[in-house]
Amino acid sequence: MNFNSFLTSLGTSCIIFVVLMLLFAWLSKKPSNHVIYYPSRILRGLEPTESAKTRNPFTWIVECLKSTEEDIVATSGVDTAVYFVFLSTVLGILVISGVVLLPVLLPLAATERIAKPSESTSNGTFNNLDKLAMGNIRNKSPRLWAFLLGTYWVSIVTLFMLFKAYRHVSNLRAKALSSPEGKPEQYAILVRDLPPLAPGQNRKEQVDSYFRKLHPETFYKSMVVTNNKELDKIWGELDGYRNKLVRAEAIFAASKEKNPEGTRPMHKIGFLGLLGEKVDTIEYCNKKIAELGPKWVSEQKSTMTDKQEDASLVFFTSRSAAVSAGQTIHAVKLDTWTVMEAPEPRQLVWGNLPINFFHREIRQYIVYAIVALTIFFYMIPITFISAFTTLDNLKKLLPFMKVIVDIPALKTVLEAFLPQLALLLFLMLLPRFLMFLSKIEGIPEESHIIRASAGKYFYFSVLNVFLGVTLGGTLFRTFKTIQHQPDMIIELLGDGLPDNATFFLTFVALRFFVGYGLEISRLFPLIVFHIKKKFLCKTEADVKAAWAPGDFSYATRVPNDMLIITITLCYSVIAPLIIPFSAVYFGLGWLIQRNQALKVYMPRYESYGRMWPHIHTRILAALIIYQIAMIGYFGIKKFPYSILLIPLPISSLVFSFVCSKKFYASFASTPLEVVCNDKKSETDMDAIFKSYVPSCLGSEKFENVGHVSHYADVLSEQI
Amino acid sequence: MNFNSFLTSLGTSCIIFVVLMLLFAWLSKKPSNHVIYYPSRILRGLEPTESAKTRNPFTWIVECLKSTEEDIVATSGVDTAVYFVFLSTVLGILVISGVVLLPVLLPLAATERIAKPSESTSNGTFNNLDKLAMGNIRNKSPRLWAFLLGTYWVSIVTLFMLFKAYRHVSNLRAKALSSPEGKPEQYAILVRDLPPLAPGQNRKEQVDSYFRKLHPETFYKSMVVTNNKELDKIWGELDGYRNKLVRAEAIFAASKEKNPEGTRPMHKIGFLGLLGEKVDTIEYCNKKIAELGPKWVSEQKSTMTDKQEDASLVFFTSRSAAVSAGQTIHAVKLDTWTVMEAPEPRQLVWGNLPINFFHREIRQYIVYAIVALTIFFYMIPITFISAFTTLDNLKKLLPFMKVIVDIPALKTVLEAFLPQLALLLFLMLLPRFLMFLSKIEGIPEESHIIRASAGKYFYFSVLNVFLGVTLGGTLFRTFKTIQHQPDMIIELLGDGLPDNATFFLTFVALRFFVGYGLEISRLFPLIVFHIKKKFLCKTEADVKAAWAPGDFSYATRVPNDMLIITITLCYSVIAPLIIPFSAVYFGLGWLIQRNQALKVYMPRYESYGRMWPHIHTRILAALIIYQIAMIGYFGIKKFPYSILLIPLPISSLVFSFVCSKKFYASFASTPLEVVCNDKKSETDMDAIFKSYVPSCLGSEKFENVGHVSHYADVLSEQI
Repeated sequence: MNFNSFLTSLGTSCIIFVVLMLLFAWLSKKPSNHVIYYPSRILRGLEPTESAKTRNPFTWIVECLKSTEEDIVATSGVDTAVYFVFLSTVLGILVISGVVLLPVLLPLAATERIAKPSESTSNGTFNNLDKLAMGNIRNKSPRLWAFLLGTYWVSIVTLFMLFKAYRHVSNLRAKALSSPEGKPEQYAILVRDLPPLAPGQNRKEQVDSYFRKLHPETFYKSMVVTNNKELDKIWGELDGYRNKLVRAEAIFAASKEKNPEGTRPMHKIGFLGLLGEKVDTIEYCNKKIAELGPKWVSEQKSTMTDKQEDASLVFFTSRSAAVSAGQTIHAVKLDTWTVMEAPEPRQLVWGNLPINFFHREIRQYIVYAIVALTIFFYMIPITFISAFTTLDNLKKLLPFMKVIVDIPALKTVLEAFLPQLALLLFLMLLPRFLMFLSKIEGIPEESHIIRASAGKYFYFSVLNVFLGVTLGGTLFRTFKTIQHQPDMIIELLGDGLPDNATFFLTFVALRFFVGYGLEISRLFPLIVFHIKKKFLCKTEADVKAAWAPGDFSYATRVPNDMLIITITLCYSVIAPLIIPFSAVYFGLGWLIQRNQALKVYMPRYESYGRMWPHIHTRILAALIIYQIAMIGYFGIKKFPYSILLIPLPISSLVFSFVCSKKFYASFASTPLEVVCNDKKSETDMDAIFKSYVPSCLGSEKFENVGHVSHYADVLSEQI
Repeated sequence: MNFNSFLTSLGTSCIIFVVLMLLFAWLSKKPSNHVIYYPSRILRGLEPTESAKTRNPFTWIVECLKSTEEDIVATSGVDTAVYFVFLSTVLGILVISGVVLLPVLLPLAATERIAKPSESTSNGTFNNLDKLAMGNIRNKSPRLWAFLLGTYWVSIVTLFMLFKAYRHVSNLRAKALSSPEGKPEQYAILVRDLPPLAPGQNRKEQVDSYFRKLHPETFYKSMVVTNNKELDKIWGELDGYRNKLVRAEAIFAASKEKNPEGTRPMHKIGFLGLLGEKVDTIEYCNKKIAELGPKWVSEQKSTMTDKQEDASLVFFTSRSAAVSAGQTIHAVKLDTWTVMEAPEPRQLVWGNLPINFFHREIRQYIVYAIVALTIFFYMIPITFISAFTTLDNLKKLLPFMKVIVDIPALKTVLEAFLPQLALLLFLMLLPRFLMFLSKIEGIPEESHIIRASAGKYFYFSVLNVFLGVTLGGTLFRTFKTIQHQPDMIIELLGDGLPDNATFFLTFVALRFFVGYGLEISRLFPLIVFHIKKKFLCKTEADVKAAWAPGDFSYATRVPNDMLIITITLCYSVIAPLIIPFSAVYFGLGWLIQRNQALKVYMPRYESYGRMWPHIHTRILAALIIYQIAMIGYFGIKKFPYSILLIPLPISSLVFSFVCSKKFYASFASTPLEVVCNDKKSETDMDAIFKSYVPSCLGSEKFENVGHVSHYADVLSEQI
């Protein structure tokens, strides 16, 4: 990629960004769009902020900058606050590194006289970007000392910022957990792997007697997990007919305005409403609801009695009792009565609870194997994509392309976007698959599934996108010289990095300009909402569903950011020009996502910052990749003091060990200290218990249908 | 080593054994020796058993065989019972393996026709022992199938027996821990890494207020750890003078019988009682005691107030509260307020308690490094010893030895014993050093130090004795052919094993004949006791101290047994003849040590079988070494199906993983289940608290000196 196509790519992205920002400024002022640009505030019963009214297009920026961490915790929860700690930490690393590296390394690289012309880039046309990189320094040059010190500087800054951030997040989590109004999950533990029943005993008795014996003073109630598959299905149908009925009634009422008799809405009951008999919707739904109601009630009963699984939630009368119980081994047989702190009610994965101990272990290893296969199976196409990214290659391999490619304007655009777009599209296929894999591991908590999925996605993107593109390009060229020497990988890594610097520069720029432009302008949600509102929504509930804002999808957001960090760290010394690009990415990201956190997204769960240790470890992994790559690259530059870099990865490992000892366990479980300020008298244990009753077993929703089921009480007392 | 010298060695050992057994039968009947042969029974206030009175020399065997596991637990504790589980498990493995392997593999090996004479042993004289080993099978012979199946059989039997044993030990531990009369350590936790004091606060207040807040209903008292070094010294002196006084008074009283005036005992106060002024012992001791008493009291006070360290014991009013507290994270800062279940009072290593969190970690890694260095440093001499063990080598290298070595009788004896004795003597140097290293790691519990030390000793003996002798001998011969190929190690292992089979056969025989002969005859303790009694003991206490029986010293006993297992497993298929020898070792060991457990040794601590996971892991390690060595050896035999052995080490690893998940955590901490049957009303909390007061701070010992110090009360209330 030459300098021109780089500028074209950058320019085009920038124009798209400006257009999107203008669209945002214009669209967000319109009151009819407020549900798209301020849904979080509306749901919390607040007015849209000042920025919706003023004509100043920068008000939202001021609002973002003014907002404090407490605001974020209050509006969007600790998880979002931790995400911003992550963004600002990385921004801090980049700014502090850049302030030192850019003024020192860029001039050093630019003023180096090239010893031999053959050291310039492969296509012979030397360009300005490569001149600013470490590749421009001669082998064994004393100027390499500055780059070596730069490597140290980046490492030290990263470790320092990470430590500060970990401590900060740890306090943030402790503060949130210690709030005097306890959350339901703080009063409960999840017990899995219940042992087989004694004859004549039922699950409920078994669990109650066991925990009453072990925690005589603090045990409150238990809730045995049931197999709700069938019940969920019936409830889904029932709910569907109910919604359909409400909608049909709305249509009927609306039609009365045109025609006093009204037109009774009809629909076909066959495949997708396209085939089969045509029926009166209102009558049909009423009939179906009347049929399903009793079925639902009887299924509820049979679920409660016959479909009890070997897992249970156990509630305690105080938070400290629950915290202690969740961390204490209960049974001598460790694969029975396994306990853990209960997940939040809303993120409990009910279907994963009964999976037993060794099945969970086995599932986990099978999933790991599948993920590993996926990573290496996808490696092949990515390697090809990276090797094909030059138009020269395309022409060589696909001669018929020559006609198209030789049009100069098209050629520049193609060269600029082709490889990045292929890569971006490619990465969009994967997250759902990884989420599915993480779910079948048997994890009982949604936020944990998301973390597991984000972890897999990170490995995928680092291995495939970053190492794949870097090594792939190099491998394609130097395949014959490798000859199965595994220790060559460090050298290869160092060798491959500089050639792809410009590619990644464009990649980062495309990400922040187009990605964040789309993020803040919310073009797609806006269009979808208006189409839905116009053609599909019949009731208030429909409209509300159409603008439902969704949440920060950490499962893809975090690994994408992590990929940028990995790339930036690796190139920070080799091509320091990437630092300002990346700083803009994280700065802009902070600003735009701050806006979204304050005004748009609604969190779907709260894990009190348990994402942080995950992020921390992966930033450290990126740092270690960077340090090893630098050892390799200094080796290639024939710099004899490159061994001075060896302490770096070792100290990163020591740092990781220290941090995990100092902080990790308090993320995995709750320290007793933070829950000791209970207000016992005020705890509404019944409400806590009821919050865990799954909606298909609950009674509220169907009270108006006339089939009140006091499941919550029944669950605890009758069985 | 040829067949003759093997028989000589065996015969000599056997004669020594018979002599020692006769000595035992004769000596143990004498009433004056009962304190040596029945000290444990005497200390527990029982008569010596039947075997002391009857003339039948085999009564003790009957008594051992009749004793049940409950007897062992009652007389010598769970740890000893677990040690017997270990012995019987290994015996079981050997017997079941041997019953199948011996009748099948020995005839197969013996009837194989040798293809080439060069395949026989190096010195050309073929002997009967080698003919019974796998080395006698031709390369690629189909008979190797039987040996391959044999390898599988041994592995399966080992895994099966290990699983059964782990389950058994786990139940044994749970049963012992759940006994209704709780032990003091079950009511306490150890808290280390207390954070810095707030101004104006003292340790006692800090600990009390923290735990009272977190455990308002179950907290009883705390005991802050103090630096007792100075106090210990004064107490030691005081105790010394007190003993000396008692003894001097006894001597004076005895002298009155001869001479009505009596001779007042005198001694010199200089170096070792050999130099300096001569003084009247009784007067001098009284003076010293009068001096030290007040000093001791004032030092007690200053220790209590000024020498508080940042660790504490915390007592709870119920066992379940203590168990929960010991497993729950207390502080958000994980390197403060770290908790663990309290060790037994008698095995608390008071001086290690205040070492802080990261120091412990650092110390641990430094100790690991030192141990690794030790292992590899000792490797050099052991390699030489092994290479020198043949007399031929000795003659070659030390020509002046020729005269001695050529005497036929001497030659045979030398050949038989020289290498084994060198090895045995060598191994006696190490345990103390390893115990010292384990102690400075900062472990707070004596039994844990012993386990850590036994672990190090195991690695040392396996690496040095077994691998060192095996590989060392081979290395010496094939040094030039290795040329730095690390993957050669498996082949080398396989290659080196068969040559040393006879060496290890003699090694095992020497161990059980001489080792166990000395063990049961207790010749050394008997002789030492009689000498002491005759010349040194003046008082009853002196005599009692002279026959104090000591305990099973697991720190060396277990790794020695482990070495035998490792050797036996590795040779089980290559030279099946080792199986009966080893079975005799463990059978005889079981019998003789059962006798010692019932009648001789007094346990110094009780860890409720925490040694077992340690033993289990190391037997598995031995099994994996064996499986890898077999892969190597089948490779050398050019047996194409040797890859069929690869699943073996993998399944051993899986087995190890499953066992650790299923059992390990309940050894590391106490499951809540086992301590839930508290008898609350009967718990004497004050006695529990007092049992942890170190003797130098206690009051009982010195009540008769007139300086009663109510330390136990003061400790809890005054400070």
